[in-house]
Formats: sequence, structure tokens, C-alpha cells
Amino acid sequence: MEKLFPDLSSRFARLLADIAGQRIAVVGHARPDGDCIGSQIALARVLRARGHEVVCVNGDLVPRRLRYLVGDMPFYLTDDTPAGDWAAIYVDCADHARGGEKARKRFPAPVAVIDHHLSNSGFAPCNIIDSTSAAACEILAGLFLDNAIDIDPGAARALYAGIVTDTGMFRFNSTTRRTFMLAAELVTRGANPSEAGYEIYERESPAKLRLLQRFLGSLRYECGGRACVGLLPDGVFEQTGAEIEDTEGLVDYARCIDGVDIGVLIEERAGAIKASFRAKNPVFRVDQIAAQFGGGGHACAAGLNLQGGTLADFRPRLVAALAAQFAAMEIKN
Amino acid sequence: MEKLFPDLSSRFARLLADIAGQRIAVVGHARPDGDCIGSQIALARVLRARGHEVVCVNGDLVPRRLRYLVGDMPFYLTDDTPAGDWAAIYVDCADHARGGEKARKRFPAPVAVIDHHLSNSGFAPCNIIDSTSAAACEILAGLFLDNAIDIDPGAARALYAGIVTDTGMFRFNSTTRRTFMLAAELVTRGANPSEAGYEIYERESPAKLRLLQRFLGSLRYECGGRACVGLLPDGVFEQTGAEIEDTEGLVDYARCIDGVDIGVLIEERAGAIKASFRAKNPVFRVDQIAAQFGGGGHACAAGLNLQGGTLADFRPRLVAALAAQFAAMEIKN
Repeated sequence: MEKLFPDLSSRFARLLADIAGQRIAVVGHARPDGDCIGSQIALARVLRARGHEVVCVNGDLVPRRLRYLVGDMPFYLTDDTPAGDWAAIYVDCADHARGGEKARKRFPAPVAVIDHHLSNSGFAPCNIIDSTSAAACEILAGLFLDNAIDIDPGAARALYAGIVTDTGMFRFNSTTRRTFMLAAELVTRGANPSEAGYEIYERESPAKLRLLQRFLGSLRYECGGRACVGLLPDGVFEQTGAEIEDTEGLVDYARCIDGVDIGVLIEERAGAIKASFRAKNPVFRVDQIAAQFGGGGHACAAGLNLQGGTLADFRPRLVAALAAQFAAMEIKN
Repeated sequence: MEKLFPDLSSRFARLLADIAGQRIAVVGHARPDGDCIGSQIALARVLRARGHEVVCVNGDLVPRRLRYLVGDMPFYLTDDTPAGDWAAIYVDCADHARGGEKARKRFPAPVAVIDHHLSNSGFAPCNIIDSTSAAACEILAGLFLDNAIDIDPGAARALYAGIVTDTGMFRFNSTTRRTFMLAAELVTRGANPSEAGYEIYERESPAKLRLLQRFLGSLRYECGGRACVGLLPDGVFEQTGAEIEDTEGLVDYARCIDGVDIGVLIEERAGAIKASFRAKNPVFRVDQIAAQFGGGGHACAAGLNLQGGTLADFRPRLVAALAAQFAAMEIKN
């Protein structure tokens, strides 16, 4: 098979040589998603098989629906990371801060970052970044195959889960021929599409469906119907019994409406605002909209966190930013 | 590339030789789905490129969300099929009756059938049937590749749509390494995953989401949480502005809850009751439950219609039937 990532794969081979014998912490981001957890598990399994002592570190727990991937891999909250020196490899983190402030202090000098975010300009001596990949797991799968590194069933299932979740089940425009070729290779190595479908998408909690119901009831259309904004108000988690991780995927309901170009989820919580953006087309550059509020992400998927923000203040500014983005695009075309 | 369907592909090559010069009707089934329409368009495009006059024939119209695939391919309702002789090739039909009674009279002797249903025992001189394939479109893609037949972008998009819909976006257990390899080949030839995702899954109406919201609000758990029952009460279509076809997929929300084995949707309308059942596992035989009320279907997906039924009468009978089915299974195991 021809090399999928010729340059990055050489860089990865050098990384493996450089870290030989070291204890490795594979660091993911706060509120980890399937690509984050999948990347951590797959990389950690590969490193462990090469003799490394390995831990996975996150600012938050592994979400319930992804726990089927964990097996015997040790996951720690940042504060609980075992004492001693750990060489940190960040995965699926667009910048050092994405791993959380605690991780930044615990691991001030990561040895490497492996990521697919457009905005990632690299923050380690070894930066393995490819924004044409649908998922960090797509990059890792390619790096392993290119270097003829064994992908065991546990790693194959983890990589597959990351690809499935970050492509919205192979339907986002990041999905390419390479994505499918890698999925085929992972199935050969033990990934099971129906297992992933069941574990990730068919084990919802009643509370999650109550949260979805509330979110659907909050949908409002802006910018002549080109944006759809849904809201999770303060207290909704207590009222529905839902957990923070249950917000995953909600914003897609705002995006999937005919005529809507950008879907937005606003989460109001304890004096802070969190917003997620999903665009149907990368031309809408929701990362640029998020950046106006200190956020970031991909052209089609971005987010922001505003400490001390209020909904009454944020919402009109958001709508103005959306309108300005649509207007700027009209001028360009 | 090694042959995907060595025997079937030779048979397909002989079929192409046998029908040379003939006018071909590619016949699908009533209430056509993505695999049906995709198979019809792809096969018809290939035959037309080989000089055949071709029409596609169905008992019902192409659904709205699949119309983006049609292009200039002529689709006819069975009664409107142009006069004269047509050699009929049935696709995605488990038996001759599946094409509809009218088609059975219009095309009493099909020349071939191409299908993936387990129950299909063949009803034409040339039977190209493989039940290990996730979709009839998976078989057709393989037949074309094995025979080095050009797949134009219109055919590639149609085949891709059939695979996506019949695998529930690559998550049903029919999804294999081959499914992904073929998806990769189709992307190379013009299929576009994000186009399919957009056209098939991201053009929902606001009314559909209002209907979903109402359905989610109605969910109730029965049989110790093993069944989840949702309700669309009389008047809900008028209240939400939704159409009958917007009920598609709703029952899956009742099924996808952790611990739930059977999801049920009850639709109450003008003195009639309609119910849909979806099981996570074929062992639950929801066709047997539906049969107790004059309905039927498959082990994992069944339905019923009760003329003159009322919800107050039906609901306790339904819950009793579900409880009896769970109890019967306990005894068996």
C-alpha cells in the first residue's frame, strides 16, 4: 500500500525513536469526545506494546458511551496523574490550553502533538498535524499503517470509534476516500461497525432524550432562516437529569434543517456561556465566528467559552456576528 | 483488485450479453427506499451507456430526499410504463410480488433479479443474489468493478446512497470491510459523502423537528424499561405542520435507549391506530407481536394498522402483548 502520510509518518517514526524508554502521558482535551478518547487509547496501546509505561490523562472522565473502548488502559483526571516524570503527547488538541489549565501546568513542555484541527499551528517540538484528515484517529491509523506498526483489536476499535464520531457517521465533508480505506483496514483488524453503532448511538439515557426534547423546543431561526439557534438554559441539566456529556450531537439538530447553513447551540451555565457551531459547508468558516469571542475550531465545527458571559448580552452579539459572516460571504461571491 | 463476486460477476457478464440490444425496464419495489432507487439508477445508467433504451419503474414515486439522484433518468409509475416490450430486471426485490401486483402483470417474466435479501430464492432465469451484501447497491458496485464496467459519477452517487441508507450510515451489522472498500471506490468515481449526508439526512423541515419534540415528550417505559412507547396523538400533524412521511425514523428514538429492547410508535388518527415496532435484536420477534393485531413484518421491524381502534383500548393490550413476549423469551432461555 502506498504511504498515506509520507512526511508525517517519517516524523512519527523519529518521535518513536526519540521517546524510547520514556514514561508517556497521552493527553486529551476537556469534555473528551470519541476522536479524543479513541486517539488516546489507540496511541497508548501502540506505545504500551512497544514497552512504554503509559497513562491517558484528561480534564474530564471518559464519557459513558465511550467506556466500552477503555479496557485495561489507565485513564486519570489531570490532578490524579501518578507522580514522576511523564513525556506528554497531546492528541486532538488544537493548542496547549485545550488540554486544560491543569494539564498545561502538569505537562508544560509536551514532546509531541498529533491533531487534525485547521487552527493548530503546533506547540511541541514534534508537531504531527494534518487538517485534511477527518479525525485525529484517521491520522493515527495512517501513521501506524505507514510504519507497519501492529494495530491490535483494541486500537482498531478505538480508531474506528474516533472516525465514526468525528465524521458524524461518515457524512461530514471531511469524509474522503482515505477515510473509507482506513475504515476497511480497521475492520480487518478488529473494529466492528455494528458494535460502534450500538455502543455510541443506541444506548441513550432517558435523560438525554429529555434534554433533546428541551433543545428542540428552544430552536429559533435567525438571519432569514440561514442560522438556527438552540438553547440549554441554566438549570436544564438539573431539570432533565441529563449530564454535560449528553449535549453531544444536539447542535446537529439545529444544523440539519433544510435552508439552515449554520446550527448553533448555546449553553448557559453558572455565569458562563458555551456555544457550539456547526456549518453545512466549510465556506461559512464558523471558526472565524467563534474566534471573535475567543473560541476556535474547524471551518465547519467550532466552539467558544465565555466566562462571565450572560445570554442577554451574548445572543445579540452572536446574531450580529452570524449576519456579518453571511454578508461578508455575499460580497465575496 | 481481486474479484469481489467472482461467480455472480460472470453471471452478470452473461446477462449483459444475453440482453444486448433489448429495451430494459429496471423494476424496483413499492415505497422505494435509497437502496431501491440507487440500484435502479446505477443499473439503468450502466445499461444506457451500453446503448440500451432504459426506463425505471416503481409502484410509488421517488421519495423527495432521493430525487437529487434521478437526473435525466426516466422513472415511471407501473401503469405509465411506455407501451411495447421491455425486458424486466428486478432490483432489491425479495420476490416477484415485491415489485407490486401491477408490475407482476406488466412484467410477468423478468429476465433477471439482483438482490441481497436472505429470503430471495430467485424468480428469474438469471438470479444474482448475495445475502452477505449490505445492499443491492453493494452487489451492483461489485459487479461493475469486477467486470471493469465504467461507473459514471451519476451511478457512483446512486450506489453510494443505497449503501448509506441500507446500512443506517455504516452502522448495521451488515457493514463489512467490503462495504467500506466499495465506498472508497465510489468516492473515487464521483460519490460525495457530504452530498449524500446533506440530501438524505440534513434537509429536515422545522415541522419534522416539532413532531420529534412532541414524540420525545410522549415516551413512556413499559415492562420494567425493556419497552419504550411513544405516541403521536390525533391532531399532532395539524398542530406541528408535519407530514405523514415525517414519522420516518421517529420510532428509532424509542428503540435507541439503553436497556430498551423494543421501541414502539403509536399513531392515533381519525379513529384508527397505527403502530410501528423496532427491536434491537431479532430474537425479540416483533413481527409476532404485530401479528397478534393483524400486522406483520420482520423480526426487528414490524407494524400494524387497526381500523376503528382507540388508544384507550389498544394501549393496555399492546403492553400485555409485549410483556407476554418478554416472558416467553425468558422461558425459552
